[in-house]
Amino acid sequence: MESSGKLIETGEEVLLYLNERKSWLVRVEAGKKFHSHKGIVDLDGVVGRTYGSEVRTTLGATLKVLPADYLDHLERIARRTQVIYPKDMAYITLMANVRSGSRVVECGTGSGALTSYLASHVRPGGKVFTYEVREEFQENARKNIERLGLEDSVEFRLKDITEGIDERDVDAVVLDMATPWLVVGIAYRALRTGGRIVSFSPTINQVERTVEEMRKTGFVGVKTVELIMRTYKVKVNETRPDMVMVGHTGYIVSGRRC
Amino acid sequence: MESSGKLIETGEEVLLYLNERKSWLVRVEAGKKFHSHKGIVDLDGVVGRTYGSEVRTTLGATLKVLPADYLDHLERIARRTQVIYPKDMAYITLMANVRSGSRVVECGTGSGALTSYLASHVRPGGKVFTYEVREEFQENARKNIERLGLEDSVEFRLKDITEGIDERDVDAVVLDMATPWLVVGIAYRALRTGGRIVSFSPTINQVERTVEEMRKTGFVGVKTVELIMRTYKVKVNETRPDMVMVGHTGYIVSGRRC
Amino acid sequence: MESSGKLIETGEEVLLYLNERKSWLVRVEAGKKFHSHKGIVDLDGVVGRTYGSEVRTTLGATLKVLPADYLDHLERIARRTQVIYPKDMAYITLMANVRSGSRVVECGTGSGALTSYLASHVRPGGKVFTYEVREEFQENARKNIERLGLEDSVEFRLKDITEGIDERDVDAVVLDMATPWLVVGIAYRALRTGGRIVSFSPTINQVERTVEEMRKTGFVGVKTVELIMRTYKVKVNETRPDMVMVGHTGYIVSGRRC
Amino acid sequence: MESSGKLIETGEEVLLYLNERKSWLVRVEAGKKFHSHKGIVDLDGVVGRTYGSEVRTTLGATLKVLPADYLDHLERIARRTQVIYPKDMAYITLMANVRSGSRVVECGTGSGALTSYLASHVRPGGKVFTYEVREEFQENARKNIERLGLEDSVEFRLKDITEGIDERDVDAVVLDMATPWLVVGIAYRALRTGGRIVSFSPTINQVERTVEEMRKTGFVGVKTVELIMRTYKVKVNETRPDMVMVGHTGYIVSGRRC
Repeated sequence: MESSGKLIETGEEVLLYLNERKSWLVRVEAGKKFHSHKGIVDLDGVVGRTYGSEVRTTLGATLKVLPADYLDHLERIARRTQVIYPKDMAYITLMANVRSGSRVVECGTGSGALTSYLASHVRPGGKVFTYEVREEFQENARKNIERLGLEDSVEFRLKDITEGIDERDVDAVVLDMATPWLVVGIAYRALRTGGRIVSFSPTINQVERTVEEMRKTGFVGVKTVELIMRTYKVKVNETRPDMVMVGHTGYIVSGRRC
Repeated sequence: MESSGKLIETGEEVLLYLNERKSWLVRVEAGKKFHSHKGIVDLDGVVGRTYGSEVRTTLGATLKVLPADYLDHLERIARRTQVIYPKDMAYITLMANVRSGSRVVECGTGSGALTSYLASHVRPGGKVFTYEVREEFQENARKNIERLGLEDSVEFRLKDITEGIDERDVDAVVLDMATPWLVVGIAYRALRTGGRIVSFSPTINQVERTVEEMRKTGFVGVKTVELIMRTYKVKVNETRPDMVMVGHTGYIVSGRRC
Repeated sequence: MESSGKLIETGEEVLLYLNERKSWLVRVEAGKKFHSHKGIVDLDGVVGRTYGSEVRTTLGATLKVLPADYLDHLERIARRTQVIYPKDMAYITLMANVRSGSRVVECGTGSGALTSYLASHVRPGGKVFTYEVREEFQENARKNIERLGLEDSVEFRLKDITEGIDERDVDAVVLDMATPWLVVGIAYRALRTGGRIVSFSPTINQVERTVEEMRKTGFVGVKTVELIMRTYKVKVNETRPDMVMVGHTGYIVSGRRC
Repeated sequence: MESSGKLIETGEEVLLYLNERKSWLVRVEAGKKFHSHKGIVDLDGVVGRTYGSEVRTTLGATLKVLPADYLDHLERIARRTQVIYPKDMAYITLMANVRSGSRVVECGTGSGALTSYLASHVRPGGKVFTYEVREEFQENARKNIERLGLEDSVEFRLKDITEGIDERDVDAVVLDMATPWLVVGIAYRALRTGGRIVSFSPTINQVERTVEEMRKTGFVGVKTVELIMRTYKVKVNETRPDMVMVGHTGYIVSGRRC
């Protein structure tokens, strides 16, 4: 049976797709309506239809109904809060060698967006230990992680990581915090030999202090990179990079415990 | 027990680390010697030591012995053959929403580097179906995949993908081939509703033809991006981007079946 | 005598400088007032002061009064109309080898911004012959050129350049137009041996057609480049590239008549 | 008479053009031969020919003979010594508002490449005062400037600029030196009100110190930018940015005396 044949049920989250620039993540609830600048959709009318079908708004716009997947949720979380961009998440995950079964320490939890990406990749058997000092951030992140069904792969720590990491012999430490250099020595002791540290920072000054501390502590293979993402308008006879772009998100420093 | 305490055994692959620019992936075999421009290391002398310890070459250089991990292997494969760079692999994997349990079609297999990265992330339960027409490439890729212990997550297809994809209802199709536009319609039929296509191409002309074909076929959310990686020299009073860099690898086009 | 000692006179154009992000180019006219979101300045009060002094607005903001120079005017023109960015103007001028005495053909005139930059650099003895088909553009450009006192170095042609270039044996042809490939052969005939052609285009499709035509026509040393300008926020402990940037302006193609 | 008609004379410098990647700047001297990996050219055979004609080497390669212009010389100087790249020279010249009649202080002289570009643009009436402490650099630069016929527009100063600038009321100060922050205050006093300072530095640490010093000294409109040049391979169906590129040259800081 094709998933295309599956009928949409109450309670499911769907993507209402308008065009390449605009779509919405919506939970299909009985008796609810979805409002947008393109008009209203009665969500009762979505139940029982197949994915891929189209609905019309009260203003006459046509929306396609797609099944919402992890990436849709990630983009939704990313839009709400100031988080690491997907391009950086993907590269951090690679450089931390995060894989099935990996035990990863993360700080800070923030919105849980990066936590969720790491958690997706340690399954099954692995675990993300995520540190955060601000209780309200942890609570929000916990909700995001549960919504994504990833709670079995995450342990939340309400603790200032500069006071220590509880875990030992972990495979990776991933830092997205204002003062990563304060955690470099602590991370070294928590990592197994050959384990990897990856730190994300927006300013070059943070990078300098972190790299210096990593070299002093004995990390090897220390590298600093920046990923610049250019988006393109592609259309025959009009193809070019977009005129306005995100010029900078942050630098990614990585190294390895010896 | 810490991994740091684990003793190195015959047959294991280790990383011999010289400095931030040079390290070697070596299998520790009895009676074998490792030769480099920095001198020779008797590998018998490595057996029985702990990871993190140091060995000296006949020319007096000091090498650190680290456990080889997946990333080391990926970099080794990447160095030998012309493959997609890690930064692109990571972003392709994200944009294809590849996760535990995903069923992914890939073409072509090439050296198996991207295959291995996708396979790492579909475990457990998922599968990568990888198409290749050149038998010798497939054989080499199969060896790389087995060496990495990922063979349970990969099915090799010796077939020209432009003649059709055997699988149905897959979650993602990932293309790294000279003529991706020829596979767009075929990919559409193989994907489940909401499934994702991601294509990597070095030239803008390939991108134009692929994007045009994707729009015609009915893919939605079509996007084209390029990831530019800047590497940095970081040292107080000498911090700057590296003078020479990889200026271009390729463009990443993605979309979604409706 | 230092210019700092010079007193501001009625009719002069001055720069009212608020901060690194905001300043205004204003003509000091008797009885006039300057209005901004930071309040009003009575311009009569500016007359007779020295450059470098400060004036206060009715809302209490402090503005520094600087002499307006060519670059201020260029930025003003550039802000009003969609023109080539200064970074591109500077590089085009270099690649066209524009110098004192050069005879340069330009198309199209547009706002006259690039015309003015070229004209600045052919003085004395040189000349910019600038082609434009839209009369109202030519009139506006003429005003800009006169305001900058560069009219002796510019000859305006109200003519479709695809019908021919009147001049012969020119040192350079500079193109900023939608269909540069239509002028490549015409430019070849107008250039002296060793003379240079430089063309600016926003899309890669224009570049492909222009480069192909240039090679077919016999131009040598054909090169295509793109200048990407990153702006930085520089402040100790907060130094980083700006988060939002102009991602693309255009490509610069250059070559040489043989 | 077209320049194409002009006959090549003994003593002239010509460009021998092989292809888009390789050409040579050669002085045509009686009885001399030009040697390259493509074979030998008897330069006597070049005399009396017209520009644009072709000569064959002893190995059968065809070279086109073009008149050498300023840009050819600039590229030759740039190739021999570690100088500012043309893209940066052009932008520095623009940001320093260098034009006919400008009085510009430069430090250091180095090979004289930037000196020559500034000198080209101050003619007539203007002057470049160029400071250098290393006598042998100054001598070499003087030769380059004389070869280009620009000596009337340049005054050489064999002096450590941190001990002071002799000129007053200059229009611009251009710095390409290891410690620009030491000259910021000195430059301020030498500039006229509204005059411009532009400093080029390879490291971000130099930029931070210079910008901080400029703000402290009272410069306004302080900006830091970096120009990244991407070169392209353009050919139908193979168009893409070059795989290897110059990733970084330096940062350009500019400001204005108030």
